[in-house]
Amino acid sequence: MKCKICKGKAVIKLKRHNIKLCKEHFNEFFIRQVEKAIKEFRMFRRKDKILVCVSGGKDSLVLWLVLSKLGYNVTGMYINLGIDEYSEKSKTKVINFAEKNNLKYIIVDLNELGYPIPELSKKSRRPECSVCGTVKRYYFNKIAYDYDFDVVATGHNLDDEASRLLGNILHWNDEYLEKQLPVLPAEGKMLKKKVKPLIRLTEQEIASFAFLNKVDYILDECPLSVGATSLVYKDALNLIEEKIVGTKQFFYLQYVKKLMNRLEHKNNEKSDIELKNCKICGMESFHDVCSFCRLVSDER
Amino acid sequence: MKCKICKGKAVIKLKRHNIKLCKEHFNEFFIRQVEKAIKEFRMFRRKDKILVCVSGGKDSLVLWLVLSKLGYNVTGMYINLGIDEYSEKSKTKVINFAEKNNLKYIIVDLNELGYPIPELSKKSRRPECSVCGTVKRYYFNKIAYDYDFDVVATGHNLDDEASRLLGNILHWNDEYLEKQLPVLPAEGKMLKKKVKPLIRLTEQEIASFAFLNKVDYILDECPLSVGATSLVYKDALNLIEEKIVGTKQFFYLQYVKKLMNRLEHKNNEKSDIELKNCKICGMESFHDVCSFCRLVSDER
Repeated sequence: MKCKICKGKAVIKLKRHNIKLCKEHFNEFFIRQVEKAIKEFRMFRRKDKILVCVSGGKDSLVLWLVLSKLGYNVTGMYINLGIDEYSEKSKTKVINFAEKNNLKYIIVDLNELGYPIPELSKKSRRPECSVCGTVKRYYFNKIAYDYDFDVVATGHNLDDEASRLLGNILHWNDEYLEKQLPVLPAEGKMLKKKVKPLIRLTEQEIASFAFLNKVDYILDECPLSVGATSLVYKDALNLIEEKIVGTKQFFYLQYVKKLMNRLEHKNNEKSDIELKNCKICGMESFHDVCSFCRLVSDER
Repeated sequence: MKCKICKGKAVIKLKRHNIKLCKEHFNEFFIRQVEKAIKEFRMFRRKDKILVCVSGGKDSLVLWLVLSKLGYNVTGMYINLGIDEYSEKSKTKVINFAEKNNLKYIIVDLNELGYPIPELSKKSRRPECSVCGTVKRYYFNKIAYDYDFDVVATGHNLDDEASRLLGNILHWNDEYLEKQLPVLPAEGKMLKKKVKPLIRLTEQEIASFAFLNKVDYILDECPLSVGATSLVYKDALNLIEEKIVGTKQFFYLQYVKKLMNRLEHKNNEKSDIELKNCKICGMESFHDVCSFCRLVSDER
């Protein structure tokens, strides 16, 4: 197996691009895909301060590393979710990774704050993944606002986004369908712009990049996410991709193109719901009390 | 396992409806689903003459039988596609079935007409399934027009339609997406209304009905359709349905609802392309020469 570019020893075969590449040229390819996404969707500029949400998993660590290698001003933010051993293990991975690669980071500890996810889920009688989403979104915004970041970046990849899109289409969740873009604009002053620079890369490509570049990430999935429906959609898409190569990428990126066109046309008739300041914490919200404070209010 | 209705011995478990039924009540359920589709989408009325396209497979034979049992004025139409043994076998199944159940039928023989599918495919250098589609659509319309039928019914089921919809969405085939309804209205005088009364029933339910009611259908799939991409989408949907019961039905029927609403709103601004009479055969078409005559024109 020879690299298509240098004829050296290929280490990976990219089926959907129909090429084999050596480590050097795979890295080049990989970084180009990230740059392409950043540019195509105008995610951020050279001078922007970027907060990268890191979980200790392959996607977020790879994103952090690549953006830093590209010379962007990045800081990692790790949230200790208070999920026992899993959280302790992933925190260690993040800290070791930051130190090895000389990266800045901020840690939010839900145990110390008194909001570990399993407890919040029990108290609020809401599913763990839903509670976790609310809490993470809140702290992404809060830390980005408090420390004056311009943009929040997450490690969502092509599989994440394509499978989420598939699930939303199969159940016709119109509200979510309208929002599934690689860039969500800032709202007000406190809700920062959100971007997903890895959306042109698959889970498998990211895992290969991590392996080849010795990124030491946590292999365990979150124990609370076992049986998550998103995995079913991923399996279904992989089954199709296996037979009809390129489907996943076309499906998602073409959807994004269509949605962006539609939103552009709609922009003039935009009827903005007004942002308020949450009566409890002061962060901006579309409600009088923000989702996070509604979730934790019992404890306040 | 007990029937939910009569507590007699259940013979089938319908996972997506969460019920077990005996033969009698399954048959009742099954027929009610057909009636519901006919009524909901205004497919046809009591006095209409219905041409049922029959292939010899389970779907079309079951459709033919159920419509006849419901007292509709049905005639089967079988097209001998000229696919060797497969065509001969399926023709025998259709004739035996018609005689056993005392049903009227019409046979179109592509061998006699000089248009067997494998030959047409070779001559036109078009894929067999595409050629077969053109030829079938042509004769559905032609026979329905020549014999003065009001509507053409086909045996497409929920799996067929949901998997086709999935394929069209994954590749964003907008043109097809606009047309994927259980009822296609008549165009002009020659292009008859098309309906799909089995769209509320799954492949498995239809196979069970056929088995329980001793419908003797051809088990072989068409040998030319081996490896068809539609099967990949069916597998993917079944994988999801297994874990998230009801997805298939919601996905398709909700899409139909949304599309029908949209088309209703659009109806006023309809820009009709005019129908013409094909210069060669005289049938109505949107082109000067109809798709069928363009396909077979070498031979004329």
